Amino acid sequence: MRIEMLCTGNELLDGSVVDTNANWFCERAFVRGAPVARKETLPDDLPVLVEAFRQIGARADFLVVSGGMGPTTDDLTVEAAAQAAGVPLDEDAQVLVDLKRRFAERGFTFTLNNARQARVPRGGQALPNPYGTAPAITLKVGKAECFLLPGVPREFRPLCEEQVIPRLEARLAEEGAARVHKASRVLKCFGIGESMLDDKVKALPQRHPHVEFGFRTHLPENHLKLLATGSTAEEARARLEAAARDALAAVGEKVFGADRDELPEVVLRSLQTRGATLALAESCTGGLVASQLASVPGASHTLVFSAVVYQDRAKTQLLGVDPELVLREGAVSAAVTRALAQAAREKAGATFGLAVTGWAGPGGGTQKDPVGTVYVCLSDGALVVEERQRYPFERDRVRQLAAYLALDLLRRHAQGARS
Amino acid sequence: MRIEMLCTGNELLDGSVVDTNANWFCERAFVRGAPVARKETLPDDLPVLVEAFRQIGARADFLVVSGGMGPTTDDLTVEAAAQAAGVPLDEDAQVLVDLKRRFAERGFTFTLNNARQARVPRGGQALPNPYGTAPAITLKVGKAECFLLPGVPREFRPLCEEQVIPRLEARLAEEGAARVHKASRVLKCFGIGESMLDDKVKALPQRHPHVEFGFRTHLPENHLKLLATGSTAEEARARLEAAARDALAAVGEKVFGADRDELPEVVLRSLQTRGATLALAESCTGGLVASQLASVPGASHTLVFSAVVYQDRAKTQLLGVDPELVLREGAVSAAVTRALAQAAREKAGATFGLAVTGWAGPGGGTQKDPVGTVYVCLSDGALVVEERQRYPFERDRVRQLAAYLALDLLRRHAQGARS
Repeated sequence: MRIEMLCTGNELLDGSVVDTNANWFCERAFVRGAPVARKETLPDDLPVLVEAFRQIGARADFLVVSGGMGPTTDDLTVEAAAQAAGVPLDEDAQVLVDLKRRFAERGFTFTLNNARQARVPRGGQALPNPYGTAPAITLKVGKAECFLLPGVPREFRPLCEEQVIPRLEARLAEEGAARVHKASRVLKCFGIGESMLDDKVKALPQRHPHVEFGFRTHLPENHLKLLATGSTAEEARARLEAAARDALAAVGEKVFGADRDELPEVVLRSLQTRGATLALAESCTGGLVASQLASVPGASHTLVFSAVVYQDRAKTQLLGVDPELVLREGAVSAAVTRALAQAAREKAGATFGLAVTGWAGPGGGTQKDPVGTVYVCLSDGALVVEERQRYPFERDRVRQLAAYLALDLLRRHAQGARS
Repeated sequence: MRIEMLCTGNELLDGSVVDTNANWFCERAFVRGAPVARKETLPDDLPVLVEAFRQIGARADFLVVSGGMGPTTDDLTVEAAAQAAGVPLDEDAQVLVDLKRRFAERGFTFTLNNARQARVPRGGQALPNPYGTAPAITLKVGKAECFLLPGVPREFRPLCEEQVIPRLEARLAEEGAARVHKASRVLKCFGIGESMLDDKVKALPQRHPHVEFGFRTHLPENHLKLLATGSTAEEARARLEAAARDALAAVGEKVFGADRDELPEVVLRSLQTRGATLALAESCTGGLVASQLASVPGASHTLVFSAVVYQDRAKTQLLGVDPELVLREGAVSAAVTRALAQAAREKAGATFGLAVTGWAGPGGGTQKDPVGTVYVCLSDGALVVEERQRYPFERDRVRQLAAYLALDLLRRHAQGARS
């Protein structure tokens, strides 16, 4: 089965937008053993799009199209697909009703051009889109089963997940036994470099001949990707599980999660399991740790506050840290970080106090602690754990790494203390 | 002149790598008035690549190829281009010498497969690559002048800059007077919807017939893109300036910047110009406002602290806000937001206190202030300005919009107060 992608939009060819939809879908097709054979990006130009649909319809079995589904005159995907298929466009009464209701619910005015979005090529079918106004559409062009989806990622992705991938899986199942089944998992690590990761798992490929091991740097994380093959889906999955168990044992606590796990969510879950609360004190991260935790729904049950003590005097103003200590030890130091963690914890009456200080650059730094130096400290009242790292990178990466270092210290402690 | 791009590599079709090279080159071609007409991504498959080169050679004048230039057997770009052009591959003695020297300098072993990288299609030419081992190559395939470049962005970009873009400019210059020069600007707006923006500038296209006006939603911003054409670069630029002046007058203070301006940086610049300092109190944004400001180098001169008062009790613990007031008015209310702004300002001894509260969802909300309601308040000691908005979106968008609303309130006030 030949799968292709077509991405449309002038914005993809004038440098204003980096397309991430194609990559997202490609990965999902690939792990199902059906890699995308070709991906084409074209401008908002009707004859060009019609010709592309015709050519793809002559050679591909399955086509995912991204973009050009909006209400304006440069949204040409539906029209182009219809022309290539040689069918007229009909106004779909149900889609029109749904559209008008959606606009009314939000208090938006339904202008005439919005009715364009209710047009469906004859023989095609509108697919419900609860994520936006533009409906998705499926139709046949030549021999290709086509899915026309809006280009906005927050609509493209769930629509793909709900409408396209189940259909792709059904098509692949119809093709039957000849197919090679694949199963994959990404193990997400922090605090371990690619070469060290490689070294830790180097014995595994021999023990798991049907599993490919790959590495990817996804700053500040490092990912270990396992791809297992088998003659049935069950065999591929069993091989994956066996390899994943061995990989976890080899890499140890540097693995913070798998696949869609995100570090802030993993940390919050660990804390919630223990019924613990958290207070933060952040300097160089400037609110990044709090903001990443707060992006997880329900974070307010766990996170009491973050004192973003950006200037030296703020450490005293917000948390009552002794200005003498800051003066003597320096704002970026183990002693001040510890004082901040303890003060945050006490002030909040929280289970944990977590603090991070550092020199993000480009200015700042001392001989002992040059730019890129980061201190993190966690206090639970009885125990204090701390870590110092130096990251020889530019400002934004230092801040990102510092936030991860703080969150990961908390994760390791919360998970360790629980078991 | 028709320009195309060809991106090769299985990693671009299995979801492991998002291609950013194409976008990077597209932007540079576009601003030179020569947009890329088509971009194709293909796997490491020799017959497929040969056929693609043949087809592109028949229709395009200029082709940039990214990827497949390495030493391994799946690096097929040079071979495919040579086959499509119908020429053999010769080993280039100078390239081989350079390669071996490069390896020796780094203490790497020169294995046999590395010699593959010294092959140049007859009639083509190796281009020096000081950024890596794979040489870049230029050759003619059909009528297309082709540039074959390594796919690693830190090699692709400088090679493009030094070898490809000057050649592109020379070709465009050869085409002479017929060429249309372009100049573009993006005006970045916040707090105005696309349809309202459209309405405000609707008279401009008639007054500026050589300027195209386009809209793009780039949440939480809305962008107005002006693209001026002229028979000389100066004419295009003059037309752009005239249109931009009119657009700014029409849209007014909703425009916060242009092109690469980012709202946090614009805000900080405004404050720094006035020698002002800032203290924040954030609830629903959870540190996002502070974190966005802190991402700008030098922010520590302006931002004193942010009290991320995530739980109700934190408002009292960190800023001493009367718990009775929170209980009576509700944590998300004009009165509490005002109290937070004033307390933050006083505690920090800062010029401005800026506070934001809101219901980000999915939980929370009241009948009066349902999920999505956001309050922002700015205090400068004498004056208090506040705003309430309701954003009918999901958690992350509400948080992002709330952070922007706060920053933009500060921007408008700081810029207004300055003039």
